[in-house]
Formats: sequence, C-alpha cells, structure tokens
Amino acid sequence: MNDVVTEDVDGSQFVAREVHLASRPDGPINSSNFEIVERTVARSGPGSLVVRNEYISVDPYMRRRMDGSSSYISPFQIGAAMPGAAVGRVTDSVDPDFPVGSWVLHDYGWRDYAVLPAKRATKIDAETVPPSYYLGVLGISGVTAYVGLREVAGLRRGDTLFVSGAGGAVGSIAGQIGRLCGAHVIGSAGSDAKCQWLVDDLGFDKAINYRSGPIADSLAAAAPNGIDVYFDNVGFDHLEAALQVANNSARFAICGTVADYDTAEDIAGVRNIFEIVAKRITIRGFLVADYWDRVSQILPELLQWVKDGDLVARETVVTGLDEATSALSSMLHGGNVGKMLVKV
Amino acid sequence: MNDVVTEDVDGSQFVAREVHLASRPDGPINSSNFEIVERTVARSGPGSLVVRNEYISVDPYMRRRMDGSSSYISPFQIGAAMPGAAVGRVTDSVDPDFPVGSWVLHDYGWRDYAVLPAKRATKIDAETVPPSYYLGVLGISGVTAYVGLREVAGLRRGDTLFVSGAGGAVGSIAGQIGRLCGAHVIGSAGSDAKCQWLVDDLGFDKAINYRSGPIADSLAAAAPNGIDVYFDNVGFDHLEAALQVANNSARFAICGTVADYDTAEDIAGVRNIFEIVAKRITIRGFLVADYWDRVSQILPELLQWVKDGDLVARETVVTGLDEATSALSSMLHGGNVGKMLVKV
Repeated sequence: MNDVVTEDVDGSQFVAREVHLASRPDGPINSSNFEIVERTVARSGPGSLVVRNEYISVDPYMRRRMDGSSSYISPFQIGAAMPGAAVGRVTDSVDPDFPVGSWVLHDYGWRDYAVLPAKRATKIDAETVPPSYYLGVLGISGVTAYVGLREVAGLRRGDTLFVSGAGGAVGSIAGQIGRLCGAHVIGSAGSDAKCQWLVDDLGFDKAINYRSGPIADSLAAAAPNGIDVYFDNVGFDHLEAALQVANNSARFAICGTVADYDTAEDIAGVRNIFEIVAKRITIRGFLVADYWDRVSQILPELLQWVKDGDLVARETVVTGLDEATSALSSMLHGGNVGKMLVKV
Repeated sequence: MNDVVTEDVDGSQFVAREVHLASRPDGPINSSNFEIVERTVARSGPGSLVVRNEYISVDPYMRRRMDGSSSYISPFQIGAAMPGAAVGRVTDSVDPDFPVGSWVLHDYGWRDYAVLPAKRATKIDAETVPPSYYLGVLGISGVTAYVGLREVAGLRRGDTLFVSGAGGAVGSIAGQIGRLCGAHVIGSAGSDAKCQWLVDDLGFDKAINYRSGPIADSLAAAAPNGIDVYFDNVGFDHLEAALQVANNSARFAICGTVADYDTAEDIAGVRNIFEIVAKRITIRGFLVADYWDRVSQILPELLQWVKDGDLVARETVVTGLDEATSALSSMLHGGNVGKMLVKV
C-alpha cells in the first residue's frame, strides 16, 4: 500500500488513504456506507507525528457509533475517517520522545498514515509482545473485560460466570480473567470450533454453541447450579437465558448487545424481566471509557498474565485497508476468533 | 360474617372461613382458582392467639406466588389459605401482652379468624392512625416504596424520578417519598382521574395516563430533561420507555412487573437494552423482605409523615371475604386507587 503515498516536490505534503463513513447504514452495513478517500495531508510540524499504521482495530462498538443515535457517546461523522484504535510506527517526527521508527498507539483509526499531535500518541513496547496486542488483550478489549468483571460485576472466587460472545475479543479475555480469578466459567460462541478453542486453549469449564439450539436450554444444562455473574456481549436471547438460570443476587455486567447491532430484523425483546425482582438481580451497563483512569494499574497485570502464558490472545487478521469494512461486517456476524484486526 | 362462627359445646373449637388457593391460574385468575373453605379450628392455647381479622391485604405479589414458578420465593400452596398481611383484634388470648380487644398485624392472610402463635403477631397502635394503614403506608407498601427509592435506587435531591403504577399502593407512596426527598416526580397511571389525584392530592409534578397513548411518547414529553431514577412496578413498555429517556448513570429500582402478572397474552419483551450500556444504567431488582431488619427505623419516619399530612394514604376497600378474589383481579388490572383492601 506504500505506493499510494506520493510525496510532493518539496516533501511538505503527501497523500494518505482513509476509510470514510459515507452514509449511515439502514440495517446491515454494506460497501455503500464507506468510501476510500485519498487525501493530501500536511507533514508533521512541531508537536505532531506522522504514523504509518500497521494494524487498525475493528470493534463491535463501531457499528453502534455509525448510527446517528442520540443516546450514545458521539456518533461517527459522515465524511470523516472512521476513528478507532490503531498501532503503527513513526515515520516523521521532530519530537525526541517519538523518534522515527518507534511504535505508538493512537485513536486516529482507519487510514494508512495518520498525522496527529504527539500528545495523542502513546508509546508502546513492541519488544515484549506483538504490537497488535495493544489493540486487544493489552488495549480496550482487555481493559473492558477486566473492569467489567472486577469493577462492574464484582466477580468473586467460586462464582459461576457466564460470558456471552466468548469467542470475541472481549469475551475471550473475560472468560480467561474469570478463570484466573477462581470462577467456574461457561462461555457461549457461534461454532463448535470456537467452543472447542474456549475449553481446550483458554481453560473455560464449559462452552455452548448458541447456534445448535435455544441458548436458554443449553445454558440451563451447562449451569445446573445457576450462575452468579454474567458478562454480556450479546443481549436478547442470551440475556433472557442468563436471567432464567441466575442465582439470587446475581450481578450482570452489560458490555454490549451485539445481536442487534447490524440487523434489519426485529429481534425479540427480553421477556422474563420479573426474574430481576424475584432474584434481586443487579444489571449494570458500562463503558470502558469511564474506567480509563485505572488503565495504568490494569495493563501491567494483563501484561504479566500474557507473559506468563495465563492469558491467551488470539487474533483474526484481515489484510488491506480496503478489507476493513468486510472485516467489520464479518466480526459483527461472528466471523472472527479473538480480536479482529486489519493489517494495513 | 360473624354468623358463620359456630362454637362447639365446650368452646374449645370453632369454625373459621378461609379463602384457599384451589388451583394455579392459567392466564387471568378466575373464581375456579379459589374456594371458600369452612374449617373447624382449635381455640388458642398458651402462646397462641385468636384474631378476628378486620382487613386483609391484597397485593400484586400474591398473583406471582399463585404460579408454581420455581424462581420466586415459595409459591403459595394449593389447598391452603392464601397467606398475606392482615390486621384484626384479638378475641381470645391467655397472653398478657395481647389482651382481648388489642389490635395486631400478622401474615395469616385470607380468613376471617386466624389462630396463630403470639410471636407471629405484631401489636399495632390503632389510636394514632386507622389500623388498615399497617397494611399499606405503614406496612409492606410503604416500606417497599421507602427502601426501593432510598436503599436500592439511591434517590438524591434534585433527581427526576419516574414511578410507574403510581396510582397503586406502592407507587403512590413512592412518588410522595420522592417529593419529600426533593425529587422532581413523574408518575404513570391508568386513568385521567388517577393522574389528577397524583398531581392534585399527592403533589406529583406530572402524571401520565398510559392508556391514552404510547408510554414512550408520553414519558419523553413529560421528561424533557430525562430521568435519573426509575421506580418500576409495571415493566415492559414502561421499562422500555424509561430506558429511552434515562440520563447517563440512571438508577432503576425494579419492584415488580405487574403487566405480566395476570395475562394470557404474550407481552412484547424489552427491546432497547443497548441503552443500559450506552447510558451506564444500573437496574436492581429487590424484595422488601431483604430489608425487613430496617423496618423499625423506617416506620417511625413514615408515621411522622402521615401524621404531618405529608404522606397521603388512600385505600380502595372491598367488603367481604367472598370478594377477595375479585378484589385481587381488579387490582391487577388497575381497578384500585391506592391500597387495595378487603374488609372482612
């Protein structure tokens, strides 16, 4: 993709490629919702960097922010590059803290080259772990899993934990953190292969293929003693099933409801809400952004688990900026195992 | 009804009338689910009392416990009298703490005469307030409203509070406690007359007749600045509407979901659960029984409010044990204003 970067005569400008949000989707996303835009941008000046992105992050929340919904933190803007986490190497800099060649994490999203203020970049250590990990297990996914279980749900040793969407970036980490915290862990995922991975490689106690039958039945069979904590990425039928098998005083951390992110169908709403009363259940929605001040305490713990081999990070990598939108679509419908990334 | 009490020759036994659960309802309750049973019972011995019930309580939770659901605290037993709160006067006692003629509160429920251990009876002061108040504002209804707002939802001065089922026993008290705590209070009820009562007599800021249009629209219009706390007695469309207008970090106390208690219809489930995430909402179900150790602190405060005229208690009274089942049915479908009682 380097060939599209064309420097002008005096080297003060160059052309970058960006994936723009072209229109808000009406139902599942399709190619008309995005466009690749070539843009001539100014080189870095004092206080700014040019970063050649190596990986861009593809996350479920992005689909929600493509909608114009007023209830969520700022919707993405039409006609602008899709924001989001990315890692890359500095190619141009006058900042001694960010020499050319150093790895950085930033949130300038879906583009090959980003020009950004140095203060918006975070240096990362690409020696210890693959730099892409800073988009997943050592990034938003890992921190989300951590705070959801520990701060939001208050997971305790001996709890039975159910994680939905356990084959995804956040769910796969949440289940493993649950195991490391001494919980009995049940996960749901959309294929037998993913379920096998959860149990064999990630140490889940049980895994349920939610496509093989009603999740309520499968979960009831998998959790004969009920569940104490639910980490929910899916919502709807999964939430209903979790309410049905919950124990008294169960705690639910609601991370996302991906079942309704990218569909034109009317999904059946949650019916058994009386269980919330009968079992005195606490349900809390959360956004990781609210806990970001804790990240400097959380990341070292996650890193140690990764180094020790206690936390397994798997990635599904799609190559090429042009594939970013299909990567997003694929992930929203279960095409990924672990963290979904685009190699730029 | 005294005429049905027939004492035997030596006075050691008498006949009492009880409303028994005859069968579990399949959809709305009907007369075949209950039967009046005349039963010869032994008079009180040492440690026990005979109480002539004056009022028995009719509460929404009773309908739920008529189902055999395993998720809830003990279902009512078929072939036994409907349990529940009642107040009456002692007619026979050898206990000096409970002289004949004294007023007591107990939970022996739907019968004209109750024979019970003295330790299961609570003396009440029928001089200060009508004794029936101990079944409502100074009983389960009042304490439920109090703990739901204060302990479960953490209501704060300046919050905007939405109470569903605000014309009922719990909701009408919850809205008034909200007002006394300095909240801006919006209530929903099922008739214009009830709405007028909420605003004119109980001091609600606004009231919505949920039968006059979609509750989501009415609530959005009534709460242009959103809601911070929701006290839910209804569930379903009301819960959905509350999620839609909730502010960030809103707290929901779920007291009941009466919309699905006594119906054969499939009620549409709650669809907009992503709002829980986007707005970081906390939803907590509760049962007042879990807070009963706080009752000795709560009742004096409620009593003072009643004495001062700050808390208005209204009752819908049906006369006759034979009318208890129709009173329950009526209440479940909005036929009451305030506390539903049967005068025995």
